[in-house]
Amino acid sequence: MKLGFIGLGAMGAPMARNLLEAGHELAVWNRSPKRVDPLAGAGARQADSPADAASHTRATILMVTNAEAVHEVLFGDKGVVQGLPAGAAVINMGTIGAVATTRIAKTLGELGYRTLDAPVGGSTSVAAAGELNIMVGGDEETFEEFEPVLAAMGEKISHMGEVGSGARMKLINNLIMGANMAVLSEGLALGEGAGIPVEKQLEVILAGSAASGVAQRRSGNLISGSYEPQFKFSHELKDLYYALELGRELEDPLPITAVVSQIYNEGMREHAEDDMSAVAEVYRQRVNARPVQD
Amino acid sequence: MKLGFIGLGAMGAPMARNLLEAGHELAVWNRSPKRVDPLAGAGARQADSPADAASHTRATILMVTNAEAVHEVLFGDKGVVQGLPAGAAVINMGTIGAVATTRIAKTLGELGYRTLDAPVGGSTSVAAAGELNIMVGGDEETFEEFEPVLAAMGEKISHMGEVGSGARMKLINNLIMGANMAVLSEGLALGEGAGIPVEKQLEVILAGSAASGVAQRRSGNLISGSYEPQFKFSHELKDLYYALELGRELEDPLPITAVVSQIYNEGMREHAEDDMSAVAEVYRQRVNARPVQD
Amino acid sequence: MKLGFIGLGAMGAPMARNLLEAGHELAVWNRSPKRVDPLAGAGARQADSPADAASHTRATILMVTNAEAVHEVLFGDKGVVQGLPAGAAVINMGTIGAVATTRIAKTLGELGYRTLDAPVGGSTSVAAAGELNIMVGGDEETFEEFEPVLAAMGEKISHMGEVGSGARMKLINNLIMGANMAVLSEGLALGEGAGIPVEKQLEVILAGSAASGVAQRRSGNLISGSYEPQFKFSHELKDLYYALELGRELEDPLPITAVVSQIYNEGMREHAEDDMSAVAEVYRQRVNARPVQD
Amino acid sequence: MKLGFIGLGAMGAPMARNLLEAGHELAVWNRSPKRVDPLAGAGARQADSPADAASHTRATILMVTNAEAVHEVLFGDKGVVQGLPAGAAVINMGTIGAVATTRIAKTLGELGYRTLDAPVGGSTSVAAAGELNIMVGGDEETFEEFEPVLAAMGEKISHMGEVGSGARMKLINNLIMGANMAVLSEGLALGEGAGIPVEKQLEVILAGSAASGVAQRRSGNLISGSYEPQFKFSHELKDLYYALELGRELEDPLPITAVVSQIYNEGMREHAEDDMSAVAEVYRQRVNARPVQD
Repeated sequence: MKLGFIGLGAMGAPMARNLLEAGHELAVWNRSPKRVDPLAGAGARQADSPADAASHTRATILMVTNAEAVHEVLFGDKGVVQGLPAGAAVINMGTIGAVATTRIAKTLGELGYRTLDAPVGGSTSVAAAGELNIMVGGDEETFEEFEPVLAAMGEKISHMGEVGSGARMKLINNLIMGANMAVLSEGLALGEGAGIPVEKQLEVILAGSAASGVAQRRSGNLISGSYEPQFKFSHELKDLYYALELGRELEDPLPITAVVSQIYNEGMREHAEDDMSAVAEVYRQRVNARPVQD
Repeated sequence: MKLGFIGLGAMGAPMARNLLEAGHELAVWNRSPKRVDPLAGAGARQADSPADAASHTRATILMVTNAEAVHEVLFGDKGVVQGLPAGAAVINMGTIGAVATTRIAKTLGELGYRTLDAPVGGSTSVAAAGELNIMVGGDEETFEEFEPVLAAMGEKISHMGEVGSGARMKLINNLIMGANMAVLSEGLALGEGAGIPVEKQLEVILAGSAASGVAQRRSGNLISGSYEPQFKFSHELKDLYYALELGRELEDPLPITAVVSQIYNEGMREHAEDDMSAVAEVYRQRVNARPVQD
Repeated sequence: MKLGFIGLGAMGAPMARNLLEAGHELAVWNRSPKRVDPLAGAGARQADSPADAASHTRATILMVTNAEAVHEVLFGDKGVVQGLPAGAAVINMGTIGAVATTRIAKTLGELGYRTLDAPVGGSTSVAAAGELNIMVGGDEETFEEFEPVLAAMGEKISHMGEVGSGARMKLINNLIMGANMAVLSEGLALGEGAGIPVEKQLEVILAGSAASGVAQRRSGNLISGSYEPQFKFSHELKDLYYALELGRELEDPLPITAVVSQIYNEGMREHAEDDMSAVAEVYRQRVNARPVQD
Repeated sequence: MKLGFIGLGAMGAPMARNLLEAGHELAVWNRSPKRVDPLAGAGARQADSPADAASHTRATILMVTNAEAVHEVLFGDKGVVQGLPAGAAVINMGTIGAVATTRIAKTLGELGYRTLDAPVGGSTSVAAAGELNIMVGGDEETFEEFEPVLAAMGEKISHMGEVGSGARMKLINNLIMGANMAVLSEGLALGEGAGIPVEKQLEVILAGSAASGVAQRRSGNLISGSYEPQFKFSHELKDLYYALELGRELEDPLPITAVVSQIYNEGMREHAEDDMSAVAEVYRQRVNARPVQD
């Protein structure tokens, strides 16, 4: 299929490469042009603007940083909508919040385009392996048309419902992940206060019903106390705020998320650039983990 | 080894049977005598009091309901301490809170006995398979002496530290499990409010970094909305309160646990006897999950 | 002094009237023209646009609903900045959030204007009496120049600091007021659950150290269970969200505000148009206040 | 009336003196005998045990530290119940928690005694002036019989309901007071973070709807940062825990109280002996109040 691909960052580049390998015809564009060369070498056409990347395509895929960037590449100077054929689709795969997703889809709809929001779960290496977890919002027909395209990038492609549902599911996923991380930190700090080393606690936790994805993947960080970012602390907090914004819009109370957001907020000055698991340090700082005095 | 075993409930009975099968010589006692017969049939001596069960043993194991029952079988009429030889050990395997554990161990120590607190993680079927997750508190020497005894009942035997550490670890484990369950419920309710069915959400969650033991084991309950108890709602709340009591004693703040305890508290009138996963219904009741209105 | 006044709602109209009575020369404008007549009758000049109201003035006062409306009357078609003389001041007296206040002041500064943010505390009748509580942000010199103008509308004029400080103080005030209201509701619901009627509780509370402005002013609502709006529930929640936004910007954790915001959020579907004191009903609904069972 | 009075601490001594001045015949007892002399000098009979103080009285009043002390003077060696005539009353005026109050009243009832729980609000100087705020639980008839006795010590005597209602009302009062104090601290810390000095904030707060008893009485502490105890930090936290215990018993959720209790808990290591208003320092420590960076 003839596709445009905009945004060749750490996630976007391997995703585009997998589309090429699956036999799709790809026109690519990136703000910083030097990231384009490797893809061009692999057979992609080097577009000179978002509009150019989108021209003559059935769908153009966006993998850019945030809602502002999406707005710019779509509606800015030489933006996608100046090249994309009528009736074609925009597939937005970045995480930009549910409210912005719905608003952008509405504008695109008024211009005669279709939209899928298709944010992804998984790290760079998962992207390279084509095994992303992709949550898709959009109408049934559009989803079915582009499912094979998504399947070139992901292992698990889930149609969540109408436009916006993919973005919402992503926020819910990150809410649960971030809150589980804070819960784990609260428990471990209590244990440390009670004189039980973190590594012993994690061994028991991972063996039983208190286990979790974050306990598995962040054990190393928690034991070593070093927080090389896999998913940035400030990004996790941003997603918690997006989830609270969604709860505000839907008038659904989120008491745990609210408290958890403030615990991350407490850590922003020290840990914004660390991995999200550095929330454990917020607790350690409060408690200065001391042995039990009997 | 010559052992006493007191408390032959749903968990205690299979644990005692595994001890017999491992070749230990067992005297058993239970408040309700009819639960004793099957064990007697399997080779256990039928004791006529806790004191009798404890007499001539190297260690007597307790698997009774709560701190009051432990107190009664140890120090009550014909209690364990009236039969247990000097220097022998009491191994308490029920979950009775960290503060009571420490107090009882102190009293036993003054009477010349040793103590291990060794609460377990796992269901009845796990107990029958001898694959419990056992968290042990006590001094190194006592732990090493009785580790082979515990190994007859559990797959994973973890020495957490001094007396009381096993009980504390159990509370931390259940704090994390219960809070993860509430976090999951909060996320799913938001998703339902946004029009995404629970089963679709769980599929995505289980495939990624928001996965957890409770998401795996309680998916069925959450989708069907029926809450046959695996671990009772009221027991989970009791353990959250015990964890808060430990945080009070150690002066460690537990903000998430505090909020979570009140969400379970809100559900007590309706769901005390249900499975802990019924906390999802507290959220559903608040929200009356309605579709998004665009 | 020659002044413009834009926004003649329930608060703006009596404020403008007090300025006239203090001898100021006033040009007024309101979106809906019929609210202008009474002021014109009292001596104000009827402007035909915000720009017209602002022309030839030393300062133009805004008392409009929200940040969007402020933006529109300042920078929209025939907006204030098309009439206001260079070096004159904009005095914004509505509550529009701290972040928007700072942004607007920056833009006005770049255009060569001065700004005071001067939100008010007090009801319509307090405004009519000229006894508002006015919190002012802006540089010292500008504050001093316009303090006599503000003194025509308020009894207590407090200079809080640089531009934005008035808006911030207003949010802090409403955070405390709204949270005190929720705290009171939580306490009263516990008392009702314990069988003590609300009116008896309030009598004791008002006589002692648990007294508060909200307990005094909302006792009637709480006893009667009717919530004629003095300050709307949805407005209180909006201000709590603004306060959380400020906490986010400053990276200051606000755990109580976060939890309180979700309790109001829980009540939005039923009570958005009621008085903020209807937060008491959120608790009543949770508890269905039942007598103590001994 | 012939009365016993047990517990002549900072509060009890002036209360007993007021009873003497009102013409009652008083037998007094205190654990530490030297506190008895001034009362004996004022006309009280010096009893040599709680039983002796209670003998031949219509009611014996207790003003001792906690539930354990109440238990000891009532039921311990030469306790009240060994002297108090059948049908006479015990009036407990200390704050000992709602659950203990109900349990003790039940025991006294079974022994043929009547009970009033009558905890007080107010400081030492208020006690000396006979102007305490007294919250009374007990049956109507008993209340009416002893209201004149209470009126010698208090200005406001409120009958809250059945036995235990006085104790419950006291906890609700202290819950609201303590939570209002934490809310105020949270708001002030946000304001400090935004660059507004605490004294300016308090001026505005006290003039408007965010005012409260704690804002009035603790302004001095908050501005000076010195926390001479009027009501101890650790006592406030104890009462918050008692309120949560009551909420647990009644199955009423108390989310704000739960969060607030953990904020005080965070301050226990530093501020246990300070005034409760030192909760402001917990926030200051988190934030290290820094000026806004524009």
